[in-house]
Amino acid sequence: MSDKLEVNSAYIDQLTVLIEANKSQELIKILDELHIADISEIIEDLSLENAKHLYDLISDEEKSAAVLVEIEGDTREDLLANLTAKEIAEEVIDNLESDDAADIIGELSEDKKEEVLSHVEDIEHASDISDLLAYPEDTAGGLMAKELIKVNENWNTLQCLKEMRKQAEDIKKVYTIYVVDDDKKLLGSLSLKQLLLTEKSSAIKSIVNTDIVSVNVNEDDEDVANIMNKYDLIALPVVDDLNRLIGRITFDDVMDVVKEEAERDYQMASGISEDVESSDSVWELTRARLPWLLIGMIGGLLGAKVIGIFDLENNFELAFFIPLIAAMGGNVGVQSAAIVVQGLANDSLKMENLFRKLTKELGVGLLNGIICSVIILGAAFGLGYGIELSLTVSISLLVVVVFAALFGTFVPLTLEKYKIDPALATGPFITTINDILGLFIYFMIGQAIL
Amino acid sequence: MSDKLEVNSAYIDQLTVLIEANKSQELIKILDELHIADISEIIEDLSLENAKHLYDLISDEEKSAAVLVEIEGDTREDLLANLTAKEIAEEVIDNLESDDAADIIGELSEDKKEEVLSHVEDIEHASDISDLLAYPEDTAGGLMAKELIKVNENWNTLQCLKEMRKQAEDIKKVYTIYVVDDDKKLLGSLSLKQLLLTEKSSAIKSIVNTDIVSVNVNEDDEDVANIMNKYDLIALPVVDDLNRLIGRITFDDVMDVVKEEAERDYQMASGISEDVESSDSVWELTRARLPWLLIGMIGGLLGAKVIGIFDLENNFELAFFIPLIAAMGGNVGVQSAAIVVQGLANDSLKMENLFRKLTKELGVGLLNGIICSVIILGAAFGLGYGIELSLTVSISLLVVVVFAALFGTFVPLTLEKYKIDPALATGPFITTINDILGLFIYFMIGQAIL
Repeated sequence: MSDKLEVNSAYIDQLTVLIEANKSQELIKILDELHIADISEIIEDLSLENAKHLYDLISDEEKSAAVLVEIEGDTREDLLANLTAKEIAEEVIDNLESDDAADIIGELSEDKKEEVLSHVEDIEHASDISDLLAYPEDTAGGLMAKELIKVNENWNTLQCLKEMRKQAEDIKKVYTIYVVDDDKKLLGSLSLKQLLLTEKSSAIKSIVNTDIVSVNVNEDDEDVANIMNKYDLIALPVVDDLNRLIGRITFDDVMDVVKEEAERDYQMASGISEDVESSDSVWELTRARLPWLLIGMIGGLLGAKVIGIFDLENNFELAFFIPLIAAMGGNVGVQSAAIVVQGLANDSLKMENLFRKLTKELGVGLLNGIICSVIILGAAFGLGYGIELSLTVSISLLVVVVFAALFGTFVPLTLEKYKIDPALATGPFITTINDILGLFIYFMIGQAIL
Repeated sequence: MSDKLEVNSAYIDQLTVLIEANKSQELIKILDELHIADISEIIEDLSLENAKHLYDLISDEEKSAAVLVEIEGDTREDLLANLTAKEIAEEVIDNLESDDAADIIGELSEDKKEEVLSHVEDIEHASDISDLLAYPEDTAGGLMAKELIKVNENWNTLQCLKEMRKQAEDIKKVYTIYVVDDDKKLLGSLSLKQLLLTEKSSAIKSIVNTDIVSVNVNEDDEDVANIMNKYDLIALPVVDDLNRLIGRITFDDVMDVVKEEAERDYQMASGISEDVESSDSVWELTRARLPWLLIGMIGGLLGAKVIGIFDLENNFELAFFIPLIAAMGGNVGVQSAAIVVQGLANDSLKMENLFRKLTKELGVGLLNGIICSVIILGAAFGLGYGIELSLTVSISLLVVVVFAALFGTFVPLTLEKYKIDPALATGPFITTINDILGLFIYFMIGQAIL
């Protein structure tokens, strides 16, 4: 039994030694025993030269094709660039199901795409892939595979089993059998368990489960993920506008969508604008961060202008609490925005009652603001800053916290309304705006009191 | 065919009218047609009074038990409080698989736990649940169910089918059949597809797939999620220290873990300390935010002290750029920390080469810092702030950005090393520390130049 493997740097170093010493026999033996997911993880961690070498040693074509599907980003592109169109068609595409094949082909240039497709021997397979390439990546069509087992409602279980044996050869994992009518319209499903446990002679019609959830091929991929997650589905049938069954999406495709979505929201909240990993190059990492830093700098310059409006020279103590006011405005804004963004992402927040949300957020802001401003009044006065300055800080903090809370709620809801990703509103964007706003409020109140 | 439903406020309002008008017949009809996941979503959105009313109208006990499992948080507690121990045992627990049953019972008080278990009629079911209650929630044992189909390696497929028919009655969803030896040690698996497609007389030994991934019952739940995700598994067998098969974890349990983990990281990055949703009460929402706001305030007070060290009265222009320096330090720190946290969470970052990571981050920090400081030098001078102040800001910014980047990388890696959740290092924590550090660097350089 192969247990899961820990791919750590010591293991990578060991393999590198074997690869560079050209120990092909030993490497082939290791590859035979490794799981596809482990091989792809290893290949991603190797240098390109060594990755190519190791990839070529995978003797089983089905395995090497599956490894290629799992490899992400640049390494996959480089490995593909090493193969001719004919090799890609025969060694890779022929061994993959339509959705994975379409993912691989989708990355090639237009010319190479056509050349590869023309080399795919099985015409049905080629036409399936070409169908799938037509759907946008972020829709149900872009996620689905064409391979599925479907049976006619008018058959009995015996015919069904026979047909299944025929269809199942091309399909790696069978989860559900779909039942369609003569027009190929989706009627319901049969589970393998049902098929194993019922008498052979039953009519499909009598055992079909019609309580089935399906999605339209144009449905957004995040909605597909939410539906599969909500109903705990392993596989979801995809239909066209006439309710004809045209594909199925499996849980592993959707797990990737859920993960990517969560990672993107997280990165946005942290002020990273592109999808980067810690293994990317210094330049890629810099580029992903620079946009938000520039926004932060513009905010800082505006902040300097705001402070410049006021007579700081004669009230220089006001400067002591600039960091506190700016930080608190930013923190509260991010907190409020994050709750809205998360609520929208997991569908638990309904868009209709915007007003009720804002009222509630006003309550939370007020409560937080009052608690914080009372504490700061005591703390500042206790630290010897004088009652006037302490009062200024305390009152400003209350106003800033309430305002930041409302703003943090309002902005992502508004973005969502106009179909812009609300996660944009978290992180540096909301922090910067709240910084400036907070400073303005602080100095206004300071001028009035001092 | 029941298509997926949009549970919006209009729909909730409609149901509320029916519930308050006591239209039981109509409501029962609606409930019959709704999916379990939809009913639980509706119940969560109703007032407690109405939720209880609707819940009592679900006539099918299996359905109402499943609804209860899906309902989250306080509503579930309130519905359970409405039932006697005997009712919970007979109406809920008897209709659930062991893992869901253990989740429900786990929420009860110690006394009620025992009382409920004593009312469970099926002794094996009660003992399964009691076994599961012993495992910590965040381990493989806390996720697994005891229900699974296992066959002996010495049987043939015919015996296997017969035994399966017997075992499958209690198990709602069958994904894989596990093969064990006479000591109940896990040997491998059979897929339903294999069983459907092979000749009836084959020996199990000859068709068992021994290339199977399993986890130990004490494995951490996030590692379980990573393993299932990596190998795209629908179900993962759980073994004890002697490799005896004792349970299985299914993909839906793990999807919840993945989602919760991502949400927790996101909330931490946004400065929210408890698991809250926008539908929670004002007080719950306030409490979840207050800890980070207090940390922010302490940071602000320390910031005031740092500024107080320096002679601001005669260099009051330095105050203009306090917001810029503080914001940039905070932003860079959060960006760096986020990439590390994400890399650790999805296992793409290896802990061993801490030094290499820090060197790379130094490169990213330097590059970002140089770009930003050149821009700010031009901008500040161009806006008429004088060359000395512009130089001070520019040099400080470079130092602050590099320092914040290193700090943002180092802190989460160190936390991980000491088994503390590295996500703690993102959000307000790193922002606050970088604020203070940035101010100190800024004023030191300012004093030297001005």
